[in-house]
Amino acid sequence: SSQLGPDYILRPLQLSDYRAGVLEVLKDLTVVGDISEERFTEQFEFLRARQGEYFVIVIEKAATGNVVGVGTLLVERKFIHECGLVGHIEDIAVAKSEQGKRLGIKIIGALDFIGKRVGCYKNILDCSPHNEQFYVKCGYSNAGFEMTKRF
Amino acid sequence: SSQLGPDYILRPLQLSDYRAGVLEVLKDLTVVGDISEERFTEQFEFLRARQGEYFVIVIEKAATGNVVGVGTLLVERKFIHECGLVGHIEDIAVAKSEQGKRLGIKIIGALDFIGKRVGCYKNILDCSPHNEQFYVKCGYSNAGFEMTKRF
Ligand SMILES: CC(=O)N[C@@H]1[C@@H](O)[C@H](O)[C@@H](COP(=O)(O)O)O[C@@H]1O
Ligand SMILES: CC(=O)N[C@@H]1[C@@H](O)[C@H](O)[C@@H](COP(=O)(O)O)O[C@@H]1O
Repeated sequence: SSQLGPDYILRPLQLSDYRAGVLEVLKDLTVVGDISEERFTEQFEFLRARQGEYFVIVIEKAATGNVVGVGTLLVERKFIHECGLVGHIEDIAVAKSEQGKRLGIKIIGALDFIGKRVGCYKNILDCSPHNEQFYVKCGYSNAGFEMTKRF
Repeated sequence: SSQLGPDYILRPLQLSDYRAGVLEVLKDLTVVGDISEERFTEQFEFLRARQGEYFVIVIEKAATGNVVGVGTLLVERKFIHECGLVGHIEDIAVAKSEQGKRLGIKIIGALDFIGKRVGCYKNILDCSPHNEQFYVKCGYSNAGFEMTKRF
């Protein structure tokens, strides 16, 4: 993508990203655990089969071929808003070594572009208070609380 | 469901709920707009085809056959947490005339039961600060902010 300059490539997740380190990037966000290449492939195919529902994008660093950023948009089908669509932005992560280069904002911008394009009436996401200002910079507003129950 | 007593029936959404008023209940939550029976049927079939992904439940009032409560669980597939599942609780509504009868808590309990049963590591939902205490009563904890961008 031209907006990113020549050093980074923004593109859909592909199978080879297992070896390009996408799961290592996600480890900066939260627990990932052990995922074999086989399990990754299976999950990748599951999500790919859900056309128009899951959009997983990555930023690849051109010089190394490594994945340095990742994000997902899950498009939810509702009855409200005339059977409207809502985009859920999930699992946004940028490698520690690549932070401060506005890669996060590029990922959100791309997922907003997709959400709008597929017809979502809004995109939403959950974050810690600590990350609120980053999402405000991305054009998001605080809309309330996230509530959780862990099983 | 026996927990509900004989006056109410908790069950999956069915096609006839268009006529039993499910959309009127959702109008207490937010904008629903005009949805024809044909459009409702199409969306219902779309969601039903996504087995294990969308669970829409309603509470029917036995005396009238009307829908008086509704709620949805959308099960998201992730890479994090060893390709874990997260349940998104969405579009919870109880008819104004039936509020104060603990029907909301029954809907959340049923969606938590489903989320746990299908293997989600957590259920999450977004709400206004005004509804936080209701979800605390349901066993939920505040986990941060919801951020929104409207298109
Ligand atoms: C915008 C964004 O990336 N939000 C993420 C969410 O997508 C992710 O699933 C969750 C994992 O947290 P957990 O490991 O505690 O479930 O963290 C954050 O809320
Ligand atoms: C737990 C619960 O029911 N939360 C709902 C959410 O599911 C619904 O989609 C949204 C609609 O609001 P909107 O019409 O402003 O998009 O309101 C609330 O956040």
